[in-house]
Amino acid sequence: VPAVLPALAAAVGPSNVLTEPADLTPFLTDWRGRYTGAALAVVRPGSTTETAAVVRIAREHGVCVVPQGGNTGMCAGATPMAAPREAIVVRLDRMSRIRGISPLGDSISVDAGCVLANVQAAAEAADRLFPLSLGAEGSCQVGGNVSTNAGGTAALRYGTMRDLTLGLEAVLPDGRVLDLMTALRKDSAGYDIRHWFIGAEGTLAIVTGAVLKLFPRPRRRATALATCSSIESLLSLLSLAREKVGERLGAFEAMNREQIAIIAEHAPEVAIPFSLDAPWYALVEIADVAGDADPGAALEALLAEALEKGLLPDALLASSEAQAKAFWRIRHSVSEASKAAGYVVSHDSVVPLSGQGRSAKAAEEAIRRARPDARIAIHGHVGDGNLHVLAIVPRLADRERQFAEADAIHAVVDRATMECGGSISAEHGIGHANVKRLARAAPPLEIEMMRALKRMLDPDDLFNPGKLFTV
Amino acid sequence: VPAVLPALAAAVGPSNVLTEPADLTPFLTDWRGRYTGAALAVVRPGSTTETAAVVRIAREHGVCVVPQGGNTGMCAGATPMAAPREAIVVRLDRMSRIRGISPLGDSISVDAGCVLANVQAAAEAADRLFPLSLGAEGSCQVGGNVSTNAGGTAALRYGTMRDLTLGLEAVLPDGRVLDLMTALRKDSAGYDIRHWFIGAEGTLAIVTGAVLKLFPRPRRRATALATCSSIESLLSLLSLAREKVGERLGAFEAMNREQIAIIAEHAPEVAIPFSLDAPWYALVEIADVAGDADPGAALEALLAEALEKGLLPDALLASSEAQAKAFWRIRHSVSEASKAAGYVVSHDSVVPLSGQGRSAKAAEEAIRRARPDARIAIHGHVGDGNLHVLAIVPRLADRERQFAEADAIHAVVDRATMECGGSISAEHGIGHANVKRLARAAPPLEIEMMRALKRMLDPDDLFNPGKLFTV
Repeated sequence: VPAVLPALAAAVGPSNVLTEPADLTPFLTDWRGRYTGAALAVVRPGSTTETAAVVRIAREHGVCVVPQGGNTGMCAGATPMAAPREAIVVRLDRMSRIRGISPLGDSISVDAGCVLANVQAAAEAADRLFPLSLGAEGSCQVGGNVSTNAGGTAALRYGTMRDLTLGLEAVLPDGRVLDLMTALRKDSAGYDIRHWFIGAEGTLAIVTGAVLKLFPRPRRRATALATCSSIESLLSLLSLAREKVGERLGAFEAMNREQIAIIAEHAPEVAIPFSLDAPWYALVEIADVAGDADPGAALEALLAEALEKGLLPDALLASSEAQAKAFWRIRHSVSEASKAAGYVVSHDSVVPLSGQGRSAKAAEEAIRRARPDARIAIHGHVGDGNLHVLAIVPRLADRERQFAEADAIHAVVDRATMECGGSISAEHGIGHANVKRLARAAPPLEIEMMRALKRMLDPDDLFNPGKLFTV
Repeated sequence: VPAVLPALAAAVGPSNVLTEPADLTPFLTDWRGRYTGAALAVVRPGSTTETAAVVRIAREHGVCVVPQGGNTGMCAGATPMAAPREAIVVRLDRMSRIRGISPLGDSISVDAGCVLANVQAAAEAADRLFPLSLGAEGSCQVGGNVSTNAGGTAALRYGTMRDLTLGLEAVLPDGRVLDLMTALRKDSAGYDIRHWFIGAEGTLAIVTGAVLKLFPRPRRRATALATCSSIESLLSLLSLAREKVGERLGAFEAMNREQIAIIAEHAPEVAIPFSLDAPWYALVEIADVAGDADPGAALEALLAEALEKGLLPDALLASSEAQAKAFWRIRHSVSEASKAAGYVVSHDSVVPLSGQGRSAKAAEEAIRRARPDARIAIHGHVGDGNLHVLAIVPRLADRERQFAEADAIHAVVDRATMECGGSISAEHGIGHANVKRLARAAPPLEIEMMRALKRMLDPDDLFNPGKLFTV
């Protein structure tokens, strides 16, 4: 038995140090099922103090620490890929307390192990909104949301997790606890250390707590599905919507025809209440906090003006809550349906808003040239400049060959993204899966600066090694 | 002649290296007129490349670099206080170009030497809003706004400069240019280096360019002045306003009776169209992008509900644009009037929204105990948790004694702020003036981490030495 295990058991209790292979299995493979790592144990501290003790013990024994939230990440950022070095996975499931909520202060303070849906529910119980919303919200945890700077469908209006995080608490690689659990709306007293850890994917600290922003709850909502002939028309519609309704624009999501065709083929239980005769489809939502507002009328006026300007051939305004849900169901079924259609080589590119037409066309052409057999499905957050371009190719038995083929596609799409002034990851992060892609895409000076911060805080590369970049 | 000067003259042209005492004077003293430093020269590079050359020359000669924007800062953060080491002041006035504007992408790219008002005007010319708004907007520069994480009256709705800065360009202390001039709405590709430099007050880099977020322009506006009996009522009114109108709440500013009395005494040209019979006054504004909106009706309904709930004894709804301007004129005259009333010991404290009542009372009591002769004026951004508490005391001829007296007041107010979970600077920064206060207030671990980043990027303490903390 490695000497670190009894020390860990003494710190958190023997039942919170999992070492049986069957107990470890669920935590060693990433959500997409593409990467499987190895760990001496999965350790479940019950408090920030215990987390700090676990880190100090790991450090003493030279064992790496891999923080893991709900293990729902897209890039194997929480998978223990440290081999040949030994590692433990640290999970905060036991730290799932809502520490406090302030309706007057519009903030909520939580343990990092809180499941996102529970934070949403606690906010709602206080008649407030915590806006972060993701497919994985029923199992992902706040610590993971902070560490990946999560986005989702509400980022257009409310920002990403970076914007929603007022304060945080973290255990540093040296075992000290950094307490930045403040609920301040503004702070200019020196460097804003908080931002070092948001989006750092557990390479600089384990986030153990967070103070999050709350908002008034929208009382009235209207949803429409519009067809568009081009991304340029989509962008004009977006621009018009922002001018007409401003921050009330709650969502602006796009799908191309191929994406909806794939849903029709592989998720037949999802109703598609229109014919697939346009190249682009936009899901538009207006949500208003004012109880006497009429967002339906505002949306209707917006769509009428857009029709008049020739921006969209057609639009369906949801006539009921049920129809609005049916529209959203199409949007939410993209991942499962695409997965069923083949091996998904997905991209999380983000470009300046105005560059999305050029960038999507360049990505599509690059994929066509590289892989004429690929189906190209596109969906995503057009209001954020973040369209997910998927190349769906046949599944191969040979894992290495599949990875090599995927990388060849990534290479041409990433080049197109960077040429449009973009970034290869808007909201999924880098993790283990995209280390090579970041090294290829990011300017050397930026990688050098990231490495310098990593060395400063974690000189022994103890925290989540092999993620983001090679040190 | 120090050897650095001919080298600088060769790099930027002799006319852009000011060395005559009369030419230097305006740039050696801070805006409040409290600190005067010394510099070998004021250097005015005309481009990012020239700025990088200036930095390399300064480094070669072991001369410190003090970046200066419009020299309108509140804390002497741009004043060359490096003595006994030699320093140059670097001003970017010549770099005042709007590099580009994208109405469709809702972004504007500018040189750091752009005056804020010119950015606002360029946005308006493209039918967009750049929301940052400050007293100094006619002379402060974007580089200084970024470097101090400027706030102002629109931060409630649109955030501070940190939230408004999509990308930036900076010259590092080693003379390299870091190009992060992207217009991305989301980016999770590794650490977000951009945030290291926002609010760093020129201690880590010279910001030479920025990409800023634009917004749709509000078309309709309504303004009211409400009287309140306590901060708690103000906060309930704020909460009610957020629930009723959400993001349309454009401003929520407070003043106490003493503040308005001081304006009445020392700025008699400012009309006070009401009697001073309440302890608190709130300036509330609703602004809507929708051209057919009726914010006046929304504000009236809000005030009626607040009156009914007993939150405010009285309210004046501006019946014209002129009356709205008159209300704002009261708010905007606080600084000049307070200055005329004596020596202003001002605070830029920020606390969690819900803690403002307790914190303001604690600060007021602490000042009363320490200085029974002080007048206590309070104004500021109650929607951000950022009330400026001013202790106005008699002017003294003895500068050192005045400073010592001010520091005694700062000490008790800062203690009250920290006890309420706050920070000593919401939007003014630390600069030179508040180094001692930050050292007293901030947890040692935070200062240690700030120092580590400073050492990492500027090991020779070449950039803006003596600011934020002693290295």
